[in-house]
Amino acid sequence: MDERAALSVVGDAVSAAGDDCAVIDGLVATTDMLHETTDFPDGTTRYTAGWRAVGASLSDVAAMGAEATAALAIYASPSFEAAEIEAFLDGCLDVCAAVDCEYVGGDLDGHDEFTVSTTAIGRTDAPVYRSGATPGDAICVTGTLGRSGAAIRRFEAGEAERANELFRFEPRIAAGRALAPHASSMMDSSDGLARSLHQLSEASDCGMSVAYADVPVDDAVEAVATNPADIRELAIHFGEDFELVCTVPEESLAAAVETSPVALTPIGTVTDDGVRMDGEALSDRGFTHRSSAAGR
Amino acid sequence: MDERAALSVVGDAVSAAGDDCAVIDGLVATTDMLHETTDFPDGTTRYTAGWRAVGASLSDVAAMGAEATAALAIYASPSFEAAEIEAFLDGCLDVCAAVDCEYVGGDLDGHDEFTVSTTAIGRTDAPVYRSGATPGDAICVTGTLGRSGAAIRRFEAGEAERANELFRFEPRIAAGRALAPHASSMMDSSDGLARSLHQLSEASDCGMSVAYADVPVDDAVEAVATNPADIRELAIHFGEDFELVCTVPEESLAAAVETSPVALTPIGTVTDDGVRMDGEALSDRGFTHRSSAAGR
Repeated sequence: MDERAALSVVGDAVSAAGDDCAVIDGLVATTDMLHETTDFPDGTTRYTAGWRAVGASLSDVAAMGAEATAALAIYASPSFEAAEIEAFLDGCLDVCAAVDCEYVGGDLDGHDEFTVSTTAIGRTDAPVYRSGATPGDAICVTGTLGRSGAAIRRFEAGEAERANELFRFEPRIAAGRALAPHASSMMDSSDGLARSLHQLSEASDCGMSVAYADVPVDDAVEAVATNPADIRELAIHFGEDFELVCTVPEESLAAAVETSPVALTPIGTVTDDGVRMDGEALSDRGFTHRSSAAGR
Repeated sequence: MDERAALSVVGDAVSAAGDDCAVIDGLVATTDMLHETTDFPDGTTRYTAGWRAVGASLSDVAAMGAEATAALAIYASPSFEAAEIEAFLDGCLDVCAAVDCEYVGGDLDGHDEFTVSTTAIGRTDAPVYRSGATPGDAICVTGTLGRSGAAIRRFEAGEAERANELFRFEPRIAAGRALAPHASSMMDSSDGLARSLHQLSEASDCGMSVAYADVPVDDAVEAVATNPADIRELAIHFGEDFELVCTVPEESLAAAVETSPVALTPIGTVTDDGVRMDGEALSDRGFTHRSSAAGR
């Protein structure tokens, strides 16, 4: 069975599964695994790997509107080189420092492929789920989309320094905290904007209608893309950008935009059904291999 | 560099690392990774794998004297079979139910080798560290030692049912909670009794003197061992048993034995220096590949 079908098995067995984080008594928790062959292109530094892996889990904490309490990482590798481990830890520590979270260590493990498993723990008394969107709400995204897609192209071109820079990102903890009182639903864009809209739609039992012209595409995308269709692919479907996608009741929109510490861009409106971009059905296609049960 | 040296790199970089769990504001957290080739012998069921992997992290929570709040697991595999995932989840759910912890899901991940990454989170206002042992304290262990070594032998003999049964264990959460008010130091025996004594000795800057005749060896060991030296190897060095090893001031020993919900056996005394069994230096040798920084 494919991963999406397998996830429904998990959803059936584990009642707490099914959002960016599991929620337990005011705590939120999430865990992710990244691999060299699928997640770290040739040229990814150990510093970027640590930053990005821990950042991915922190992004899930952000998506619940929670503050980040602690993060852990397992560094699994065929060999242990002091310089590599130190660079990796620096990345873990720096991304945590960027969002006022404590990096508390983890585990080392001998493994045939460089693999990183991360966990982040947060706190909130009022988690924001994927399930609260209501027709009429504005659909918004933080920051810009397409950076990770652009990073992949830079890696492919051998431009490792710029690629690594694009591959690191600031988890939207502060934005998530600021938006939580306003947002009716929220998740991160790790599977791509298209998939995120479908997932919010499914969880909230409503539709999503967005305008491509309003989607904030990162400048880095235009610099690497070959044509407009390519730009659209990287911005809408590629994913792995770790921005927040949220819905906000119309009357709270101005306050949400005002309070967000990063640009918050309205891109459309929650509808009764269907996920559409510019009036046409938007394909539910994106970055799926990192999907998960509690932590997708 | 080997794993032990690599761990010291982590210890230098991450101040919270270095005990069974990291401690953050009344929370404790730990993460572990287990692999098919090194941790799950041929014949290990997915149910046992789920139980054991989550149990290993819960054992680290127990070692801090904390209650277990939540556990997560990542199931990474070359393919996803519904029956296997369900069995795995049943194991995760059942081991959590056994210690009153909530299993909250986790992640699925495509990977070339069956690999499980687990996280457990607990709470305590008074964590017990490895560093509090004082000369004169009694050294105690919960339950019996050698079950996992006996399980491996049963797996090797193709006796999978009995092997799986021996490979599952009840994490000592209840015992850890009961012992916490009495214990001066505590850890789990996952690296084997010998290594645990060395680690307590190092963390507490003192010595350990134990008597082999007092070590509670599981009956399952005698049933598979070939001679007395083999019994000793499985009970003292093999490890992976997930019992608690703790030190208790002499005046609290009777209360600790009385309050523990499982057998608590005194096996020796904390000394000024050196780790000795029956007066002879005890080799610092055991199950090392699962060692970690916060979660070892």
